Amino acid sequence: MLTTSEDLESARVRIAASCVKTPVLRLSSPDVESPLWLKAESLQRTGSFKLRGATNAIGLLDRARQIAGVVSHSSGNHGQAVACAASAAGISATVVMPETASRRKIELTRGWGARVLLCPAEETVRHAQKLASETGATLVPPFDDAGVIAGQGTVGLELIAQVPDLAVVLVPVGGGGLVSGVAAAVKQHLRHVSVIAVEPELASDLAEGFATGVRSFWSTDRTGRTIADGLRSAAVGELPWAHIRNYVDDVVTVSDDAIAEAMRRLAEDSKLVAEPSGAVATAAWLEHSDRLPKGVTAAIVTGGNVDLDAFFAITRG
Amino acid sequence: MLTTSEDLESARVRIAASCVKTPVLRLSSPDVESPLWLKAESLQRTGSFKLRGATNAIGLLDRARQIAGVVSHSSGNHGQAVACAASAAGISATVVMPETASRRKIELTRGWGARVLLCPAEETVRHAQKLASETGATLVPPFDDAGVIAGQGTVGLELIAQVPDLAVVLVPVGGGGLVSGVAAAVKQHLRHVSVIAVEPELASDLAEGFATGVRSFWSTDRTGRTIADGLRSAAVGELPWAHIRNYVDDVVTVSDDAIAEAMRRLAEDSKLVAEPSGAVATAAWLEHSDRLPKGVTAAIVTGGNVDLDAFFAITRG
Repeated sequence: MLTTSEDLESARVRIAASCVKTPVLRLSSPDVESPLWLKAESLQRTGSFKLRGATNAIGLLDRARQIAGVVSHSSGNHGQAVACAASAAGISATVVMPETASRRKIELTRGWGARVLLCPAEETVRHAQKLASETGATLVPPFDDAGVIAGQGTVGLELIAQVPDLAVVLVPVGGGGLVSGVAAAVKQHLRHVSVIAVEPELASDLAEGFATGVRSFWSTDRTGRTIADGLRSAAVGELPWAHIRNYVDDVVTVSDDAIAEAMRRLAEDSKLVAEPSGAVATAAWLEHSDRLPKGVTAAIVTGGNVDLDAFFAITRG
Repeated sequence: MLTTSEDLESARVRIAASCVKTPVLRLSSPDVESPLWLKAESLQRTGSFKLRGATNAIGLLDRARQIAGVVSHSSGNHGQAVACAASAAGISATVVMPETASRRKIELTRGWGARVLLCPAEETVRHAQKLASETGATLVPPFDDAGVIAGQGTVGLELIAQVPDLAVVLVPVGGGGLVSGVAAAVKQHLRHVSVIAVEPELASDLAEGFATGVRSFWSTDRTGRTIADGLRSAAVGELPWAHIRNYVDDVVTVSDDAIAEAMRRLAEDSKLVAEPSGAVATAAWLEHSDRLPKGVTAAIVTGGNVDLDAFFAITRG
């Protein structure tokens, strides 16, 4: 079932109290003829758009389900988002993280009041599912979920209200939750606007699948090569795939070098700290402006959760 | 003459089309009990609040004066702001910069369409004044000007509308244009809110003058020691001094180490690139929270114009 206008509108109301309506900034350079508009989800609470989906998914649960708590598996932004959203709803959250997760990410997740369980990386999903079935807690999936997709779609609702004469939207894609929600929101209101999914070349399972019409799965050994650590999922989810087939106009891939350059430009010109995954849509604009549709263009800067040391290492090249 | 409500309100209307209403973000950490609210002027066009004052000062000129053009002297944010504001008004601008200015700053200023003249650092002010008197162009001063002060004050108007229950505002001070406008705006609407000026210890001419009641002048050899290169003015201006005596509750100083730590926290926790001068108000909150008045507190992050190499060098400590 594809996301409806009603799903999106109710998500917008549901998340309003706890999510930031993030600003739209320009990639400001004296070349003002064709600026890129940036939807700065890096400035969202918890540092990424993931809070929207988690907040909506938890808000959709009835009170009895909420009281039984939620479970998530993530070493990254989704785990923090579930922890923060659960805290805002006054319910308990457990986040299953790989033993290899950084101390800082564990601390941040705990800081939102979540219980953190560590286990071998390859077992986090199974462990979270087991925990959910044993305790009655609800698993909040990172992308393959209607509530999560509708929540992420609120980025699109805001964007079309914030940027006049919008013609092109560039959206990073990993599991596909964000691009699904944003594409549904944009296409239902402004059918003529192009929605372009952007992937790292080194994890371009969707570009392959989009070209052949058959959803493609890549090994995590393969997707793990890109610096965009938030976009290393093996494939887009089933529900995202349906949205992408219906709503997304094209898939573009970017090199890791272009991602690093985009991080530099976002920091120097727009004063934003973006994580590698957060910079891929901007990278597409920098690397492939000739191949993109013409007109007023916006890129979603999805997150800013990157340690300064990693930020330095990447942007110094 | 102190800035009136009418000055501020008309400035707000005058700058609305070309300046960004910058967002208020939180220094987001799981410790949500007492977040610091950040007025992110680093996300303003040209990367600093200076655009507001320049836009208002130019907007106040009658059309004949505008057509004769404007002149400014600055190696930093004010020069870019005047260049951008003049461009938006469709008039010519000349910015006199020291020969030692970085190539990037010269390029950025030229990029806004301004003519850049280079001369020895100690002669920029005289050169700009001479140019103004010879050509009939109007000099737009960096802070000691009623139009500039009213423009900067729009930061305060926005802030009091954006942060409910505001109790304390922390404002970086160099020449004093920003703190003058913000203090006037805040005190005229919310008399009970404390306005605290923040200076680097190494350039604390105002703290000295505020304590003695006599405006203090420091040599630029002395103020030049701080990393906060935007706050190295020898003294606050005469008009700012009058505003500060009337409206500012206290002056607090911060160490350069605290400024560097604030830059790290702003980048890691709030995903903002702040220049050293832009981080001093946040530094006061980090370093002196015990000495500041209690209650909901906001810091103005005044700018983000810092080369990545300098950013790295400072934040890596």
